Amino acid sequence: MNPTNITSFEWLALPAKALSEDHHTQALERQGQLTKPVGALGKLEAIAVQMAAMQATDQPQAERVHITVFAADHGVTAEGVSAFPQIVTTEMVKNFARGGAAINVAARFLGASLDVCNLGTITPTEHLNGVTYQPIAAQTANFVDQPAMTHEQLATALAAGRTRIQTLKPNTDLFIGGEMGIGNTTSASALLAYLLDISSADATGPGTGLSADGVNHKAAVIDKALQFHRPYLETPLEALRRLGGFEIAALCGAYIACAQEGLPCLVDGFIASVAALVACRINSNVEGWLILSHYSAEPAYGKLLSAFHQQPLLALGMRLGEGSGAAAAVPLIRLACQLHNQMATFAEAAVSESE
Amino acid sequence: MNPTNITSFEWLALPAKALSEDHHTQALERQGQLTKPVGALGKLEAIAVQMAAMQATDQPQAERVHITVFAADHGVTAEGVSAFPQIVTTEMVKNFARGGAAINVAARFLGASLDVCNLGTITPTEHLNGVTYQPIAAQTANFVDQPAMTHEQLATALAAGRTRIQTLKPNTDLFIGGEMGIGNTTSASALLAYLLDISSADATGPGTGLSADGVNHKAAVIDKALQFHRPYLETPLEALRRLGGFEIAALCGAYIACAQEGLPCLVDGFIASVAALVACRINSNVEGWLILSHYSAEPAYGKLLSAFHQQPLLALGMRLGEGSGAAAAVPLIRLACQLHNQMATFAEAAVSESE
Repeated sequence: MNPTNITSFEWLALPAKALSEDHHTQALERQGQLTKPVGALGKLEAIAVQMAAMQATDQPQAERVHITVFAADHGVTAEGVSAFPQIVTTEMVKNFARGGAAINVAARFLGASLDVCNLGTITPTEHLNGVTYQPIAAQTANFVDQPAMTHEQLATALAAGRTRIQTLKPNTDLFIGGEMGIGNTTSASALLAYLLDISSADATGPGTGLSADGVNHKAAVIDKALQFHRPYLETPLEALRRLGGFEIAALCGAYIACAQEGLPCLVDGFIASVAALVACRINSNVEGWLILSHYSAEPAYGKLLSAFHQQPLLALGMRLGEGSGAAAAVPLIRLACQLHNQMATFAEAAVSESE
Repeated sequence: MNPTNITSFEWLALPAKALSEDHHTQALERQGQLTKPVGALGKLEAIAVQMAAMQATDQPQAERVHITVFAADHGVTAEGVSAFPQIVTTEMVKNFARGGAAINVAARFLGASLDVCNLGTITPTEHLNGVTYQPIAAQTANFVDQPAMTHEQLATALAAGRTRIQTLKPNTDLFIGGEMGIGNTTSASALLAYLLDISSADATGPGTGLSADGVNHKAAVIDKALQFHRPYLETPLEALRRLGGFEIAALCGAYIACAQEGLPCLVDGFIASVAALVACRINSNVEGWLILSHYSAEPAYGKLLSAFHQQPLLALGMRLGEGSGAAAAVPLIRLACQLHNQMATFAEAAVSESE
């Protein structure tokens, strides 16, 4: 790490906010008093208890949801690793601005606020509705034989995520980070192979829709990159710099900041969960603030999941990104909170308890 | 079957409404044009296509949801098969009327209309808000050594489900049937053991929370009942009469009526799904109108599921009944429809397609 930039990264190690043990205990107790057999609401009970502990309240809620989609381009697309052309990142940013993408529809459905943060695409996207244009570079460097980012670029990307969270915190119950970046499953798979010490083949999948041959080629590209970088991969942070993307780093910074600021965070699918795993490896108390939302159809998701201490809420075979899988899980969290807050107790309803 | 009552059951064999093949084809085509990789929304794509085919529309929707909870008591509770006393059925009907149960909270959350149909509880529940009191009897007969229902009682219970659907159809996009009845997992497990030709032990679980010993006793009770009834179990309908409950029969009638009237129907967990399986065995085209909502935590659910040709949307470890698991799945169906209806196509958004 370049010594002159150490200070830019110091915030990453700041402690996560503590979960409220008192509210956790009280919420568990209340779940045992509501008019249902204990445990009969399954994961909805656990989610309500977790939200109560995170929000330090006896009335947890997930009404005010904010979604930020971080977008960026990837130099590694030069290796032919995606089923879609690189221009699609820019085109999808424009689609977000016009409200036509899946995450726009989902945000409207949820009554959630949504913004897009473009951290660098090959074509500029200035003056678009709802899009902050903060280019770090036109794209990352092709990480096959060079670091994807400089130290400064990594620090800037991480800080972009943190800043977004610090701005949101006072008026948000739940944060969702999404991503858009053609080529970013290649970055995510490379990071995953390093983090779990598994083969490139085991970490790689079709992304937006590669053929079997395409997946093999993508794995070979990742393998080549890992051979080049392996001597220098001393920390998760350095792996993120060498193999990551601007949007993946921003998500990682956002997750760490959520834990530090005490903002519950719903994690999307494969790419977002790799960013979350990097965050947990950088700062070990982050996971307590993360809720995994859905089991991605990207084949390596199962291996990725084994590195967490929880199971995702949904398994719908989704693999779109943008935060769409996390958005689909929001109603379950809202319902879990409302059941917790509004159901009558056995005493209130004069219902007899188990014999 | 008593010949004088044959006419009361003739409606069960009337054909299901045909799904619209044209709208199915058009919806599949549209999913391929939306700005996402084909298949990237997973089951949400399949649900939207299925809803379009059921509603014969290019704009499927699940905004107007109605939930009917059928409640009834079970004579078999005399055998000590439940963790809760029988009076809880009545007490929960009163809890529904006061709005304190899980399904009340869920209905409010969804903006869904909810009514309760009491088909017979050991204590009358007249003049309760939102509860129709239509007692067939104070409870079913204890089916250990006699049929649970007479032919007339079965016909009345089935018709109660059908009538509810016929009333709802013009103003409802999606129907959910719930159930409440202490002892009704014993009925459901007995029916399941018969329908799938599996052992009582394999069909039986803890219900609202029996101990291991309690589960063994419950399985023994079911085994005894099956030995008594086996010579007479010639049809699914006769099994329903001998082993079922008023609320289970009403759900069965409702599911068949949904298919006949063309009303999409979201099926709750273990008990509701047993009722749905009886419906599918009585009338083989019913399943096309049913969407399984959640993978119940009742242990025999997996075996039950193997008799259907679909997978449920959710797996949250829920086992409450009342329609609560189906209610939890409603937002996914709404989101699936809105994504289908509102997302931009590649052409509309000028996004490049896969190479």
